[in-house]
Amino acid sequence: MPENSTAYEPTERTVPSRNRRRASYDRELVHSILDEAYVCHLGFVRDGAPVVLPTLYGRIGERLYVHGSTGSRPARMADPGLAVCLTVTHVDGLVLARSAFHHSINYRSVVVHGTAHQVTDPDELREALDALVDQVVPGRSYDSRPANAKELAATAVLRLDLDEVSAKVRAGGPNDEPEDLDLPHWTGVVPVATRYGAPVPADGLDPAVAVPDYLTVL
Amino acid sequence: MPENSTAYEPTERTVPSRNRRRASYDRELVHSILDEAYVCHLGFVRDGAPVVLPTLYGRIGERLYVHGSTGSRPARMADPGLAVCLTVTHVDGLVLARSAFHHSINYRSVVVHGTAHQVTDPDELREALDALVDQVVPGRSYDSRPANAKELAATAVLRLDLDEVSAKVRAGGPNDEPEDLDLPHWTGVVPVATRYGAPVPADGLDPAVAVPDYLTVL
Repeated sequence: MPENSTAYEPTERTVPSRNRRRASYDRELVHSILDEAYVCHLGFVRDGAPVVLPTLYGRIGERLYVHGSTGSRPARMADPGLAVCLTVTHVDGLVLARSAFHHSINYRSVVVHGTAHQVTDPDELREALDALVDQVVPGRSYDSRPANAKELAATAVLRLDLDEVSAKVRAGGPNDEPEDLDLPHWTGVVPVATRYGAPVPADGLDPAVAVPDYLTVL
Repeated sequence: MPENSTAYEPTERTVPSRNRRRASYDRELVHSILDEAYVCHLGFVRDGAPVVLPTLYGRIGERLYVHGSTGSRPARMADPGLAVCLTVTHVDGLVLARSAFHHSINYRSVVVHGTAHQVTDPDELREALDALVDQVVPGRSYDSRPANAKELAATAVLRLDLDEVSAKVRAGGPNDEPEDLDLPHWTGVVPVATRYGAPVPADGLDPAVAVPDYLTVL
């Protein structure tokens, strides 16, 4: 698919078996959900069984980069290519209905299917490492010592192209049954968000080093 | 393993290939990590490829229950049993080192391997549904209409026993190299936590219905 298309092409496995109205293939929506997070859950198959591990990722355009040491299992399995499913989820609210059955969560998620490949080009590896750092704290890669040759050699990065992708979003209030509307239970949504606390300097940091601006906007 | 053992028995696949010092099999630690969350990432294999979906879960003792409609893929595949990997992750902090290489995340995660089975016993199904609701908001199952026969029939719940389980924890400050300690970059940890906002009543809720106490302690 051309990268300037506004939507990803649905495939058999990116069309959900339930709640299809919540699915979206909109490229901007997918990017926005991915860019608000930095931890994904990466699934792969090992000895026929599923494995799901939390890991850091970064996005550059239509490519995701996933971090791992060269000793990690996904990295060792990624030559010549590892079938993966990469999932990112934000919880936005707790949905309390009058009926237990209609309790739910407001969320935004992205699921990416594809084959991950180990990055071997040195320039791409450096760009990917910057993207991984900047995904956590935008701008931070410019304010830290870049990886040296030894560190680059000890780092494995997998690339996963954004091709077979879907988003899923649930928003709004509870969907109670008409016959339940007079039940006496409180009903509504409890908003959920991520809170970033005041930065805590490391032991030994020179007190003259100020907290950088890019941390004050988190 | 006896359920009163203080630790889960490590297995070949619950011993991580890297950062082994971060791994733990302590039962109390595993329970505490599981009990602080309500969304897991459930991995399974479909047509030979991994699938990772976010979903709600609840814990009763050494059993996890995962929710799904009877039409959902994992539920349909869970008879007679579905190999799954269920992962729960809390992000506790952003670890900013002076070197890009030593950037990290403080986190607590639990990974459960096993075979999920569909719950067919009606009493167990009711208990599991209460556990799913109470995992999100402790005490809420007592303050909502229980599922009726039609809803129970439309709900599939999978059970996964806590048997092959590990936790992984990263805490503390950055681990910079000695030769980097005089670099001019700010270094430390940005704490990350979940923030619950003020409950938002659903449209049409009788204003006389007060926000329940169990929501004020979130």
